[in-house]
Amino acid sequence: MTKAPQHPLLASLDDALPLRDFSLEQLESTAAEIRDVLCNLLATRTAHFASNLGVVELCLALHCEFDFRTDRLIWDTGHQIYPHKLVTGRYHQFETIRTAGGLMGYPNPAESEYDLFMTGHAGCSVSTAVGLRSGDVVGGNADRRTVAVIGDGAFPSGIVFEAMNNAGELEDDLTIILNDNKMSICPRVGSVANYLDRLRSNPFYTGLKHEVVRLLDKVPMFGDPAERLLAQMKEGVKAGLLGGMLFEELNIHYIGPIDGHDIALMRKYLAMVRDMKGPVLLHVVTEKGHGYKPAAADPVYFHTPPAFKDNDGDPITQSSDGLPPFTVHARDAIRDQMTDDKRVTVITAAMCQGTKLEPVREQFPDRFFDVGICESHAVAFAAGQCKTGLRPIVDIYSTFLQRSYDQIFQEVALQDLPVVFMLDRAGLTGPDGPTHHGLFDIGYMRLFPNIVMMAPGYAGELAPMLSAALAHDHPSGIRYPKASALQLDRIPAPVEIGKSETIRDGADGTIVAFGAMLDQALAAADLLAADGLEVGVVNARFVKPIDEEMVARTVPNGRFVVTVEEGAKMGGFGSAFLECANEQRLDTRVITTLALPDEFINHGDRNHLLHEHGLSPEAIAQTCRDAAGVAVV
Amino acid sequence: MTKAPQHPLLASLDDALPLRDFSLEQLESTAAEIRDVLCNLLATRTAHFASNLGVVELCLALHCEFDFRTDRLIWDTGHQIYPHKLVTGRYHQFETIRTAGGLMGYPNPAESEYDLFMTGHAGCSVSTAVGLRSGDVVGGNADRRTVAVIGDGAFPSGIVFEAMNNAGELEDDLTIILNDNKMSICPRVGSVANYLDRLRSNPFYTGLKHEVVRLLDKVPMFGDPAERLLAQMKEGVKAGLLGGMLFEELNIHYIGPIDGHDIALMRKYLAMVRDMKGPVLLHVVTEKGHGYKPAAADPVYFHTPPAFKDNDGDPITQSSDGLPPFTVHARDAIRDQMTDDKRVTVITAAMCQGTKLEPVREQFPDRFFDVGICESHAVAFAAGQCKTGLRPIVDIYSTFLQRSYDQIFQEVALQDLPVVFMLDRAGLTGPDGPTHHGLFDIGYMRLFPNIVMMAPGYAGELAPMLSAALAHDHPSGIRYPKASALQLDRIPAPVEIGKSETIRDGADGTIVAFGAMLDQALAAADLLAADGLEVGVVNARFVKPIDEEMVARTVPNGRFVVTVEEGAKMGGFGSAFLECANEQRLDTRVITTLALPDEFINHGDRNHLLHEHGLSPEAIAQTCRDAAGVAVV
Repeated sequence: MTKAPQHPLLASLDDALPLRDFSLEQLESTAAEIRDVLCNLLATRTAHFASNLGVVELCLALHCEFDFRTDRLIWDTGHQIYPHKLVTGRYHQFETIRTAGGLMGYPNPAESEYDLFMTGHAGCSVSTAVGLRSGDVVGGNADRRTVAVIGDGAFPSGIVFEAMNNAGELEDDLTIILNDNKMSICPRVGSVANYLDRLRSNPFYTGLKHEVVRLLDKVPMFGDPAERLLAQMKEGVKAGLLGGMLFEELNIHYIGPIDGHDIALMRKYLAMVRDMKGPVLLHVVTEKGHGYKPAAADPVYFHTPPAFKDNDGDPITQSSDGLPPFTVHARDAIRDQMTDDKRVTVITAAMCQGTKLEPVREQFPDRFFDVGICESHAVAFAAGQCKTGLRPIVDIYSTFLQRSYDQIFQEVALQDLPVVFMLDRAGLTGPDGPTHHGLFDIGYMRLFPNIVMMAPGYAGELAPMLSAALAHDHPSGIRYPKASALQLDRIPAPVEIGKSETIRDGADGTIVAFGAMLDQALAAADLLAADGLEVGVVNARFVKPIDEEMVARTVPNGRFVVTVEEGAKMGGFGSAFLECANEQRLDTRVITTLALPDEFINHGDRNHLLHEHGLSPEAIAQTCRDAAGVAVV
Repeated sequence: MTKAPQHPLLASLDDALPLRDFSLEQLESTAAEIRDVLCNLLATRTAHFASNLGVVELCLALHCEFDFRTDRLIWDTGHQIYPHKLVTGRYHQFETIRTAGGLMGYPNPAESEYDLFMTGHAGCSVSTAVGLRSGDVVGGNADRRTVAVIGDGAFPSGIVFEAMNNAGELEDDLTIILNDNKMSICPRVGSVANYLDRLRSNPFYTGLKHEVVRLLDKVPMFGDPAERLLAQMKEGVKAGLLGGMLFEELNIHYIGPIDGHDIALMRKYLAMVRDMKGPVLLHVVTEKGHGYKPAAADPVYFHTPPAFKDNDGDPITQSSDGLPPFTVHARDAIRDQMTDDKRVTVITAAMCQGTKLEPVREQFPDRFFDVGICESHAVAFAAGQCKTGLRPIVDIYSTFLQRSYDQIFQEVALQDLPVVFMLDRAGLTGPDGPTHHGLFDIGYMRLFPNIVMMAPGYAGELAPMLSAALAHDHPSGIRYPKASALQLDRIPAPVEIGKSETIRDGADGTIVAFGAMLDQALAAADLLAADGLEVGVVNARFVKPIDEEMVARTVPNGRFVVTVEEGAKMGGFGSAFLECANEQRLDTRVITTLALPDEFINHGDRNHLLHEHGLSPEAIAQTCRDAAGVAVV
């Protein structure tokens, strides 16, 4: 019971403050302890790994040179927050991370004053930092410093450019740390990435600095012509030699690149940029997976690897039932369509791994487009392709598609172009929590004219749905959750736009399931059958256009109707069902709409969360019993 | 009847093709004719003016060097499309522009094969162009060329950066014309603008090119050290001298700047870039308002000036009733709040003129922030300010706020920060049409947890609503249309979150109006009173939280309820009303929801459009009569 703590330095840290007095040796020992904790964690569960290994030294150096109880620190995207959590008083709770009721896998202001913003979507940290700094200037707190840490994967996101455009004009003091680990989740893409590659090869970084200075001394000075011309030449020489012109042109001072695993070096540079005037970008080069060889060698796999103990190589399959997830069926359907039709392309936004599209990228390199974490561009780009006669499929997570909302509006819906949106992770995503759950797409997609929105209830209908979408001459969306796909032993009824499929008849009432909730609906019907209640189950398939005949058939017969969906209740499928029933002047008092409540849903196991919110088979069955006025149990 | 046509060259152009054979003199005469048409038009109605005067020569040069029946041309933002319309077969219909049933004031594929995308939101042209080019490459039509024309005001939009990041990697041939008129609608802001200013002062543009070359010759060549170092120095010198490094670093070739009013010069450069490999940006400098002195002198006023004949200096007041629009009341309320509370700031996205905030900018320069056409950044920036204790108001048009949808989600709603959104132009905007109508915000805002959404029914309650929003410790939105605000001779009931206001009692039924439709609802009640029907009118004020007691009071009394809103029906206020009634197990058959249908609404006069879609007082009254079973008339 009195054995020495496994991680004595971390165990002693109630707060980040003592780090400032640590010796370099102690800091390096702390780094080693952090890596040990991360590796231990990965032996127990799926979690973000390689990115956290990469920022250990950066995190320590930041806490040494700033006091983030008052200074402001924003971690962009946020999944690299683990070292920060470990040194800000959360070491002893760390083993609860990503479990229900435990620490969140992203920054969480509810956990610590050291976490300012809950972030999970990429690219916004520079904007919020500009806002924080501006707020402190206006509010008379200019002594508080502001730091944003953003990865090179997130950097090409449009909002970063917008933020630099504003920061360069405001000229408020601000430190932007560009954490360049040469990776997005997948290998990064785009010309910004190539630019960063060139910066890393510049003589300042590669140690040729003295050589540069010697050469510069040899450049003669011209006394005669326009001073401006000369100044521009010097700027040009500086740009070519020292790099960073992309930032300097936007009035952001560029410093670096420096080695992001050398704590002493980083402390020196952080102390320097901390006291510089105006916005400064410090380019730090790190290695994703640093300190754990397998992760450094394969950072894509080790971004969010499965728990080591059952490392079966498929990090997406969260199900214990062994069935393939919807994502795999979607990928196969996409590949089949691309095989059959040369007009079909697929576009992702840095989520090639999560969407399991890597084999498609290998097979059809000319029709596969990963545009990076640039969802707005992805959608407008698809619209452009569409106009030339191609049939692009945009495969983006439900929650990230929010980043292209205006392009869905203007470039796709308004032009009525047949872009097909595949909304992966549409529903509860489990341990990632509120930034990653995809709960709003039913509501936000169906608002726009021309769009068809559908959801497969089981594995067998995903492929025919994609066929129907591609054959339809208007925009459409197909949503499916991060879950294993129900296997039904039936040939799906032909997919017809706006038509539902009745899976099971029943005289006592009807459950209308939209999408993957069909699984729970059928299980609920089984439970009810055991009570002697014959409940029908309809696979709604479409929320827009909703199947009016189905509504007209199920509502007026005097029996209850329960709608079930894995999405936000407000504006969702149930709401569309009510709209349709009201349009037909039906008595809606028999209708109960089950969906997720109007609150942000925590992280936790999907089935656990469904149960908690009345969407498990048991809870659906109980709602049906109540609706039927039959109080069994 | 046989007098010579007023504009002989334009009158002769059924198509753009003959322009290619015009002499320079003829082209210049055509330019003069176009300017004459534009000035004549402005004598009759409000229209986009200065931006169109600025692109006359550019438009002509483009049509000379490309054949846009097969080549692809995208006009970003699209309000500078008038010269293009005049030379692509629409001269004879031109006088109908922006009138109901006439030509649209933006590109419109339904009008002409020369218009590819209907654009009204800024910044997406480069993305769609990259997509078009990619589609032509994949589809085997690589001989078709692609050109995007984008203004310097739109250029800092994040999606442009995302598009360049992708274009620089794909390396497909592509011409981007940066139309630099040194203006957004308002004077442009941001460090990109300053960068463009520097480019215009470079020696290549200012005629010092020979001087540069002479100097370069004097720079000695070093034979010994690393070749890379030398290459970088040369690049640096080139960058400093010739500019464009921001683009060159992204692998976009930069050419320019050149004079955008010199047709011959532009033809020469366009012919050159047309045949270059990879993506090229041609920087063209134009003068907004060129050729009409008052417009060139005051391009802000002349962006969308009122018709000359009743030029009363207030381009927003569309009403003939002389009442100030909601926008003016909003501005005054903002100013009063900023006067009373130093924590209050206001943030706009290049819409300082449209939102009438110019006096606020003058009075509170330190708490006024125009971030340019960067709505995503605007919202995340506000969230940052909020976190420091400030109370930012984000004043953005309803349709443009779609561009920050994901920041509303993550940076504001998820963090539960008390940002106040002022959604101007929420409703039908009249002659601008479908890209500018703000019809979806009720649906898209109420989806997110923590957000309160409200709308003033009349002038007197806008200020108390803003007070209530600022006093509320959570995010909120206030929506109002581009319309004159109803003046009611009453002291508004105190604004309480989630509480409606009953304006008029009536035993025969109730009209529940959300927002500015209160005006039409009261007028409808007057019409019905003349028929002997006593109809109550409720000013709903809130769609979220909706007033449950009001719903419980109005629905079950057996009389009809008609909801009225100026927004899309799907997911809108009526839908929220049905959700609430269903939650209370009320019989919704008495409820009729009036709203705009599930289609994109054309341009046209607001009252005309309201009538067309059943939202005029007469139409509302008729719906009430039908609902009451009283067939009067």
